[in-house]
Amino acid sequence: MSFDKHDLSGFVGKHLVYTYDNGWNYEIYIKNSETIDYRIHSGLVGNRWVKDQHVYLARLASDVYKISWTEPTGTDVSLSVNLADKVFHGTIFFPRWVMNNPEKTVCFQNEHLDEMASYREAGPAYPTEVIDEFATLTLVRDVGENDDTIINCPASELPANFPDNLR
Amino acid sequence: MSFDKHDLSGFVGKHLVYTYDNGWNYEIYIKNSETIDYRIHSGLVGNRWVKDQHVYLARLASDVYKISWTEPTGTDVSLSVNLADKVFHGTIFFPRWVMNNPEKTVCFQNEHLDEMASYREAGPAYPTEVIDEFATLTLVRDVGENDDTIINCPASELPANFPDNLR
Repeated sequence: MSFDKHDLSGFVGKHLVYTYDNGWNYEIYIKNSETIDYRIHSGLVGNRWVKDQHVYLARLASDVYKISWTEPTGTDVSLSVNLADKVFHGTIFFPRWVMNNPEKTVCFQNEHLDEMASYREAGPAYPTEVIDEFATLTLVRDVGENDDTIINCPASELPANFPDNLR
Repeated sequence: MSFDKHDLSGFVGKHLVYTYDNGWNYEIYIKNSETIDYRIHSGLVGNRWVKDQHVYLARLASDVYKISWTEPTGTDVSLSVNLADKVFHGTIFFPRWVMNNPEKTVCFQNEHLDEMASYREAGPAYPTEVIDEFATLTLVRDVGENDDTIINCPASELPANFPDNLR
């Protein structure tokens, strides 16, 4: 094998902005090997943002990484990033209640964890909605680990020219 | 880009046997671009098997593919396969009821779809249990598409020397 599958140093500290083929704009920061921050710019749950989500990272090939997690909302997520070829693919398994009432999840989740847990328990969880989409990476930059300034406000409070101002 | 991300011809028709790092033995057949058959040999739900599960396939790199699906049990799955380097990684999001009573899912699921749906509805769904593991590929062979003889009995009815007899 031409790479060490346990070496995540080429991925941790990366800040990515991407647009799914369905038009949804997302942003993620690989804060450290177990944690991400993310911010949603548009789409079903646009303007939702989350800090310190616990995740599982795996290296699949020299330049291909996988990020997986389950949310307080009950949403399961598995993202794949090919940094060499700029291929991004996301699979999001939404509980039915998020599809029925996506606006309930639009907030800075860290300040509403009990609320998310109660929505999750109330459901309905099923049938699960699977969003399986490629995305285009519009920004990839290395900002180092554990920087709380990378994602620190909702998308609605960002400058109008974001993310061009970061390039 | 050095590959066509929509070309799945290097993956469809593949039959894979693999062992997760936690010791669980699994087998999957990429029956066509939207369907898999699978059989579980050991682990939490050993001897469960399923035909014609609807899946989402994606090509992430020249030799790296992703398979995702949600089950009638409510289990969400995202598998990644690097055929060049023989790296396999699986993320399985189990509903709580499967962790509490895994034996309920051990069957030929196709003959118990209503039962699975009623278990799923009864729950509990949460907290989700995330199994995030690398696996070792012990068999990779190309058997072509839509062959119903590849996976057609439970693991318990296979010859004792399976999968060595397939190599």
